[in-house]
Amino acid sequence: MYQILDSSLIKKYIDETPEIRSLLLTPDTSIDALEISEIGDGNLNYVYIVRHGEKSIILKQAVPFLRVVGEGWPLSRDRMLFEIGALEAERALCPAHVPEVYYSSPEMSLVVMQNLEHHKILRGEMIQHRPFPLLAEHISTFLADTLFYTSDFYLDNVQKKENVKKFINIELCKITEDFIFTHPYEDNETNAYNPELDLSHVKAFQHNRDVKAAVLEMKYKFMTEAQALLHGDLHSGSIMLNTEETYVIDPEFAFYGPMGFDVGIYLANLILSYFSLDNEDEAYMTYVRGQIVDTWKLFAEKFKANMLRHEIEQRSLQFDYPEGLEHFEYFTDRFIAQLFEDTIGFAACEMFRRTVGLAKVADIAGIEDLKKRARIEVRVLACATELITAKASFETIEDVLKVVETQSQS
Amino acid sequence: MYQILDSSLIKKYIDETPEIRSLLLTPDTSIDALEISEIGDGNLNYVYIVRHGEKSIILKQAVPFLRVVGEGWPLSRDRMLFEIGALEAERALCPAHVPEVYYSSPEMSLVVMQNLEHHKILRGEMIQHRPFPLLAEHISTFLADTLFYTSDFYLDNVQKKENVKKFINIELCKITEDFIFTHPYEDNETNAYNPELDLSHVKAFQHNRDVKAAVLEMKYKFMTEAQALLHGDLHSGSIMLNTEETYVIDPEFAFYGPMGFDVGIYLANLILSYFSLDNEDEAYMTYVRGQIVDTWKLFAEKFKANMLRHEIEQRSLQFDYPEGLEHFEYFTDRFIAQLFEDTIGFAACEMFRRTVGLAKVADIAGIEDLKKRARIEVRVLACATELITAKASFETIEDVLKVVETQSQS
Repeated sequence: MYQILDSSLIKKYIDETPEIRSLLLTPDTSIDALEISEIGDGNLNYVYIVRHGEKSIILKQAVPFLRVVGEGWPLSRDRMLFEIGALEAERALCPAHVPEVYYSSPEMSLVVMQNLEHHKILRGEMIQHRPFPLLAEHISTFLADTLFYTSDFYLDNVQKKENVKKFINIELCKITEDFIFTHPYEDNETNAYNPELDLSHVKAFQHNRDVKAAVLEMKYKFMTEAQALLHGDLHSGSIMLNTEETYVIDPEFAFYGPMGFDVGIYLANLILSYFSLDNEDEAYMTYVRGQIVDTWKLFAEKFKANMLRHEIEQRSLQFDYPEGLEHFEYFTDRFIAQLFEDTIGFAACEMFRRTVGLAKVADIAGIEDLKKRARIEVRVLACATELITAKASFETIEDVLKVVETQSQS
Repeated sequence: MYQILDSSLIKKYIDETPEIRSLLLTPDTSIDALEISEIGDGNLNYVYIVRHGEKSIILKQAVPFLRVVGEGWPLSRDRMLFEIGALEAERALCPAHVPEVYYSSPEMSLVVMQNLEHHKILRGEMIQHRPFPLLAEHISTFLADTLFYTSDFYLDNVQKKENVKKFINIELCKITEDFIFTHPYEDNETNAYNPELDLSHVKAFQHNRDVKAAVLEMKYKFMTEAQALLHGDLHSGSIMLNTEETYVIDPEFAFYGPMGFDVGIYLANLILSYFSLDNEDEAYMTYVRGQIVDTWKLFAEKFKANMLRHEIEQRSLQFDYPEGLEHFEYFTDRFIAQLFEDTIGFAACEMFRRTVGLAKVADIAGIEDLKKRARIEVRVLACATELITAKASFETIEDVLKVVETQSQS
């Protein structure tokens, strides 16, 4: 039966669960040899490191409310089912970049998994201006493989539709629908403005016809386009890495949605990091610009390669004529062009909401000089406005970068 | 327990099912007073009229195979669940145009419903050049109401997503994916060509890069865009009517898909009927052209009115500023423009598949002079090619009609 665990209950639970106990202890070692520490800094769940000597695991448990708010904001523990399901699906497709699940219990809403003890959260590292040479390579692989191999381009129609059904994630999608696509664009009480931010800049996009229509279009895509199993929350706080390895964690927002959402949220977090630099540290600015360009280019390249390889391997009757493969490639290029436009649209939504919505990014919200922070926020809002209203006009990621650079110097 | 009913088993079943018996008989009337006749001319199910004097009902039962092929093509009886669910949902939203369900049994895969004895199938009536002055008015209402009120624009996100899950209709969607979006565009053994049709016209679209890419895009939309509860098979054989009343029947293909699919399939069947006239009967040609234009215009008008009325009634915070409603209207117009483009794309797919695919339309396939039929088929294929490759360029339904008229005279 479900109960919320604390350190002493965790010991008891592990002692009674041989699958977990054997990960850490020999049969004759006492359960009291375990060291347990709570490290959860997330908004939703409790996360513990359980250690015995060299051996350690992560134990993560969902509670029936939003942790950051408390029992006043009930949230079903079902989210742990989505997290477990997504971790397992992503790990199967992309083992190098997804932590291993050792054990899970739907009843207890908990998962036991690999402790990434030699890895740090990307956001914190970027705030300290630390470059990671393999990051774009790794994240582009994660995106290209999880998005392609869970889509209709790869799965047969039974498996795909069963997956869609399994990952109908009502509660967590609702949080995104509200906090990324609705509240930031209206005078909502959950918004939070930097007191030094001149609110005319907020009204300027909240009452802008073209922004409003485009945001609603992106929200509608989010709510209706079941293209692939998304991570659903791929910001720089959901990535743990070191110079050699990169892991994507925390997929409780997973559901079948538009591919551009994962790509866009991630690129937006790079762009927000870039703006946070406030035109200082040339070397790191160059690095972040490179990440923006490389992530998209490598993703598009790898996604296209997945498409073509699969078509060549399966040799569909549909394209079985001399120019067939060329025609399929033409379709793929058109699909990626639409995905690029979606990516830009979703990235802009993330930039708006991280500036005026409830959940900020530490990169910018952590700037203590509120006037400096406001200067940056004005640039972010102008950039997001330009990106979302002109999203159909960009042909390359360099075109997008140009807007980012111009707005960051304004 | 499930069993396939025949006339004598139907009597026994009704005798044991008071909810049905009481529709037809007083308690003291013998069950043998019922007259039972099989009228199923569909591809999937068995359909009986059960009558006693003035009173009559339709009893429809699904069998665990495709009726038109036989036991060699197994098809789950689950389709009856989708039909019952869709009939009930559509009837609640649009009672004037959906038959009443009196009784249903998921276990027996059967539904008992209103006998439309004073109504005929639209396709047969069009083949006999009979006009129906209220048809466009009625079908546009059915489309505008079923599509709007089952979408995210009206339902809250829990109800909508529960609906999506309930209507994941794997088997029947697969039939559409294969027979509307795949087989007709390849050298598939299920295709069937009029022996008088010069196959160079078939190869011309089957190997046309822009047609192939656009068809795959429409297929992808069909497979991924869960916008509204579709009828899923809204051709002129799914409509029963007389001069006063119009009913939409047979929604076993119902699922959450792109709105333009229902609208496009219906318009395509009007266009196919128009081509079948072979430029004879000016009056009926004018009538069908009017149906094409009026159906789209009335649908777009009513859908937009639903959108605006709902926004005015709920007064969302998002658009609560002086120009807000105008901005919402701008979004609605953009949405309808995209829906129009989708409609044209889906219409073209239906035109291709009804010409070379397994399932034809009697309007054209019933033409005994195979040379005349081939002449018409060549025009249909040319028209479908033009529509799908230029779908983004049409601004009004009159622009579409111009292509239909030009191609029908070629």
